Formats: sequence, C-alpha cells, structure tokens
Amino acid sequence: MTTFGFTLHATDGAARSGAISTPRGQIRTPAFMPVGTAGTVKAMLPESVAATGADILLGNTYHLMLRPGAERVARLGGLHGFMHWDKPILTDSGGFQVMSLAGLRKMSEEGVRFKSHIDGSTHVLSPERSMEIQRLLGSDIVMCFDECPALPASEAEVARAMRLSMRWAERSKQAFGDRPGHALFGIMQGGVTRELREESARALTDIGFDGYALGGLAVGEGQEAMFGVLDYATGFLPEDRPRYLMGVGKPDDIVGAVARGVDMMDCVLPSRSGRTGQVFTRRGVVNIKNARHADDPRPLDEACQCPACRNYSRAYLHHVFRAQEIISSMLLTWHNLHYFQELMAEMRAAIAGGRFTDWQSGFHAARAEGDIEPL
Amino acid sequence: MTTFGFTLHATDGAARSGAISTPRGQIRTPAFMPVGTAGTVKAMLPESVAATGADILLGNTYHLMLRPGAERVARLGGLHGFMHWDKPILTDSGGFQVMSLAGLRKMSEEGVRFKSHIDGSTHVLSPERSMEIQRLLGSDIVMCFDECPALPASEAEVARAMRLSMRWAERSKQAFGDRPGHALFGIMQGGVTRELREESARALTDIGFDGYALGGLAVGEGQEAMFGVLDYATGFLPEDRPRYLMGVGKPDDIVGAVARGVDMMDCVLPSRSGRTGQVFTRRGVVNIKNARHADDPRPLDEACQCPACRNYSRAYLHHVFRAQEIISSMLLTWHNLHYFQELMAEMRAAIAGGRFTDWQSGFHAARAEGDIEPL
Repeated sequence: MTTFGFTLHATDGAARSGAISTPRGQIRTPAFMPVGTAGTVKAMLPESVAATGADILLGNTYHLMLRPGAERVARLGGLHGFMHWDKPILTDSGGFQVMSLAGLRKMSEEGVRFKSHIDGSTHVLSPERSMEIQRLLGSDIVMCFDECPALPASEAEVARAMRLSMRWAERSKQAFGDRPGHALFGIMQGGVTRELREESARALTDIGFDGYALGGLAVGEGQEAMFGVLDYATGFLPEDRPRYLMGVGKPDDIVGAVARGVDMMDCVLPSRSGRTGQVFTRRGVVNIKNARHADDPRPLDEACQCPACRNYSRAYLHHVFRAQEIISSMLLTWHNLHYFQELMAEMRAAIAGGRFTDWQSGFHAARAEGDIEPL
Repeated sequence: MTTFGFTLHATDGAARSGAISTPRGQIRTPAFMPVGTAGTVKAMLPESVAATGADILLGNTYHLMLRPGAERVARLGGLHGFMHWDKPILTDSGGFQVMSLAGLRKMSEEGVRFKSHIDGSTHVLSPERSMEIQRLLGSDIVMCFDECPALPASEAEVARAMRLSMRWAERSKQAFGDRPGHALFGIMQGGVTRELREESARALTDIGFDGYALGGLAVGEGQEAMFGVLDYATGFLPEDRPRYLMGVGKPDDIVGAVARGVDMMDCVLPSRSGRTGQVFTRRGVVNIKNARHADDPRPLDEACQCPACRNYSRAYLHHVFRAQEIISSMLLTWHNLHYFQELMAEMRAAIAGGRFTDWQSGFHAARAEGDIEPL
C-alpha cells in the first residue's frame, strides 16, 4: 500500500510542480480539484470528470453529514463507492459551510451547534466530530476543523478565530490519529495580517501535518489583497509539503496563486458557471446566452478538445441554454472543467520546462484579446 | 446512396420484425424512438442515447420551428449536425403539439394559425409549411400534417378531422415531392370507429406513402380501446410498409402494440419519467424517491447493464434524486431508455425465433412479481 507522500519535481521562481502520491492514485500538482458537494460534481458523470484530467475531487462534509448522512455513507461502503469515483477525495471540515449556510449557530470552545439549512434539524460539529465524519466518508485527504470568520472582521476577531482554529487543529490531529495512506492537512488562518499568518503557520508546523492549507482567503478580500498574503504566506510553510489554497478561483487567481507557490486549489466556479451559461476560454469569459451566438456555427474554442467544442456550435449551445435544456449544463460544465484542467496541465509543463514567466505572459495576452469577433 | 426501404425478416402471429434502411443507417424494427423535442433528448448526450441501442430519434417540428427556428437550423447545416446525431431522425408534423401546446389557434382548410407558447408570436402551419420545415430540418422520415382532435370528440367531429387530414395528406404528398433517401409517412385517423379507420387507410393507401402511422391513439382513450383499434387497424395497412403507432407508450402498451403488428413507436415516457424519479424495470415501476431505497446498496435491476445499474446503488440514486442533483435525471433517463431499447431487442429476437407468445408470458409474469423485497 502506497503511503501518502509529496514529491517536488521542479520549481520556477516560487512556482512548483510535483506529485502527491496516495493509495488511490497520484495527484499531479499544481492541481485543481472540482467540487462534488453532495456526492456529485453537478451535471457530470464521474468518468467524465476524470476525462477532463481531474486527479482528485473535493467533497463537502457539511452537505454530506446532513444528507445522506456520514454514517449512512459509511454503511454503504464510503464516499468513493457511493459516488463511483475511485481516485482520491479531499473533504473539507465543514467549518466554512457551517458559517455560510447553516441556520442558527452557537459557537463555543467545544465546537459549533447549528441547524440544517435543509430541514432545520440540529447538529454539532467539533474537531472530533469532523474527523469522525471525514473518516466515515473515507476521505483520502482530511482537513482540520477551523473557524473562518466572515468579512468584514476586526483584526482582534481574526486573531481570536485563528487562535481558536489552532487549538482545534491540535484536537483535530489528536482525533485523526494514525491512519496510514490518509493525510491530514492543517489550515492557516490570520486574514490579511502578516504577523497572524506567521503565528498560525508556526502553530501548525509545530503540530505537524501532511499538508498545509491557506484558509480565510478568497472570501471577499479581493485579488490584490489575496496575492499580497500569498506573497509571504507560502514561505511560512515547509517546502516539502503540499500547499492548498482553499476556494480559489478564477483562472487568473489560479495562475497568480501558482506563481506564488500554491500546489492545490478547489472552486465551484467552473461547474457553477457551466449551469449559468458562463464559459471560460483562453480568450476570457464567454456568455453563451448573448444573442450574438444564436447563428454562430463556430465552437466555443476551436483549439479545445472537450465534447462541447468538438461536437457543437455556439449556436447549439446558445439554443439549449435558452431552452433551459439539461444538456446545456452538462456540456458547459464539461467544457469549463476541461478548461481548468488544461490550464493546470499547461502550468505544470511550463514550470517543468522553466518557462513559467513566458507562459504567464501568453496566458494574459490571450485573455486580453477577448472573445473572437462576431461573424 | 441507399434509398429508403423496409424489409420484413420474420412474423410471429401479427407481430413483425424487420429493418428500415435509410442513407443514415438501419432502423431495427420493432423500434422505439426516444424523443428529442428541442434538439436534445433531455438529460442525455446523443452518444449515450446511441449507446442505449436507439437507431432513430424523433424531433418535434412545433418546438424547433419556434426555437431555434427551422430556417436557422437549415443555415447551420440541419438538425443532425446541430444536435450531433448522425443516425436517422423522424420529425412529426407539428399538428399534434399545435393543438395541445399553442395558444390561440385558428383552424381553416388551409391550415392553422397560432401563437407560440414561448413568446406569443404568431405562426402558421399548413401541409406545405410543415413539409418545408421538415425539409429544412433535414428529417429522414417526414410526417404528413394532420389534425388530431382532442378527446372527448363526437364521431362526427372525428370524421370531419379525419377527412380534413386526408385532404392534408394529399397536399403533404404534393409538397414533399420527390426526395430520394427521405421518406414520407401518412397518418391514419378515425378515432375508435372502425369504418372511419378503414376509410382513412384507404384514402392514404390510394395516395401512397413510404410508411403509415396510426394517429389519434394514446390520447386518453385507454389501453383497451387502443388495443381494440389496433386489432383491426394494422390489417388495413399494406404489409410491406412500416407501421408507426404515435406517442406510445408504457412498456405493456408497447408489447401489446407489437403483438398487433406495429413496427415503430415513440414516447417521452422514459425520458420524462427519468426526471421525475420513475424507473422502469423488468419487475415493474420503481419510485426512487421512496424512503425504502435510502439504505439499499443494491442496483435498480441487477441484470441491467446500464451505467445507473452497473455503477450505483438504489441508495445513491435515491440521494441524488432527493438532493435534486442533475445526475439523477442523467442516470435515471439513461436507465429508462436502456430498458425500453432492451425491451425492443428482446421482442425482435423473440419474433425472429417464433417464440413471441412465450416471451409475452414471461414479460407479464416478471412484472406481476413486483419490485424486489426491501432489505
């Protein structure tokens, strides 16, 4: 049985390429993880998600504990079999969603008591319960339970939440125990304050984790502030462990994060946008519902090899979006996930080839061109 | 270029098996045609529809003329390329939907003027315009424009509508002209009145068509009345042309129709039911939203080879249906279409083997068993 490990293959400036090994397969880094909130990446069959090039999915502890329930998933053999995905799965801790989605919450040192947004039933999340749920789900990469304060928040509030999260990280590590082949990641907090980020990183590395996430970013602070934190914060983390930036992001966020030493990211953006008709291409964002596409026989992106681009015109994609056909969500989600995975593959190759700066210039130049001219 | 043709391979009682040849490929009969209303079989990629065993799709003239528009589809190269389906397509004439879906209608000898149910715009359908639209779409099998009166209707009203439809059939034939490789089917009307059905069949065969449809059935008259008509009406039609029963139906309707000499059918049932959680199996209908499935690790049907049955438990299908995930519609539609195509394949084999009566007994016996016992 392969144990969990991380190998750096190349660096180019702060950017890194490598691979995480797990008993369920390798994760090429920098990696983008599609989000399979409730046991499905919306509008995709899992074999199609794999076909886009995804090596790992993210599952949401909060959603799965409420429905269908972690104990039920465990009785059914775990999340991998349940959702028919045999590659690695990373689960979040539930901490973020409990703050953003749940009803009536009561926070304490112990954890959070809250009401389900689905049926109003009462639940508890704590470091110990989060570890238990993630074990029941069969997650390969488990995240520490943390508190991510909602913005705007005072520095005192950010510091308080960070220090609580560090105590919870210690409890998470204890509760996780020794599980060969499974990894536990700590989550750095501290908002946009350098000293707090440094304190958080020190606390986490003192405990010791298989990987380190950057939490509390991509929560509304803006790209400049986020990059400002990444400029120093990745440097607080050990070089020989993967670094995961949670909830990022737009293509240019992703590129900027990789340039600053991030190895893993996740975001609902490609799948959610697929359902709302927002399409990502090398030349920026295309809104398929725009009337300019109604008679356009060209693909979204003629260089793209996804089924939406190989088999359909913009006119067809426009039609099925306007007619609210399910195939619209299916094809546009596939395209978007394919685009995000191609982006990661290009970056991995550029970093390995020592030409990441040039690649970034080309990336930004293509986007600056904007979409192809209407016919 | 293959011309349109029909070959009977075997008969067993009134049941027939054979093949329709077209330049776009062969259609094995008895055939079930999934419905791709607006240029998509809802929740399915076309390659997945083909994987279920479908040789032909049905497209709806009414929906496509309103959105995206027949002239637009023609400019884009026709319906096959537009929707990425290169096998045969049969289009209906628009006559049925204009009566069931359109707003404010004005019928005349000339045709029907009506308002779109989508945007209220005014349109006209006539035999000539219906033929033009079906030509613009690139349909392989074109249906005559007819009037199907809404039930309940007096015998006088049914007779009037049938005779109008026969005059329209003549005009449809004239307007269709000579299109090698494309077929035009006449549509028999006459409700449940034997004399009217016979008069209609005579009128159609006097004109001469490539195939003959049975219209005005499966519109609320009930299975017994429908079978009563089929008992004699297929016999009014030439043996050497395919017989198409429009809008049928449930599995037992389909089996009874094949037993009475029908070669082709279409229905939205498998795809629509897939979206509402109704699943067809050899042992009858399963309602996946029922709580009994929440912890059931077994597939819908362990003998079924579709992706929903090979890769997922009832518990998963129950979960994603309850969570209103798109994958629920995708998997259940796939299963249902697979079931319907397997049903047709079994009937073709049984007819070819001269054991159709035995096969029917087995079909009804398995359904009488009902779903597997809860765990």
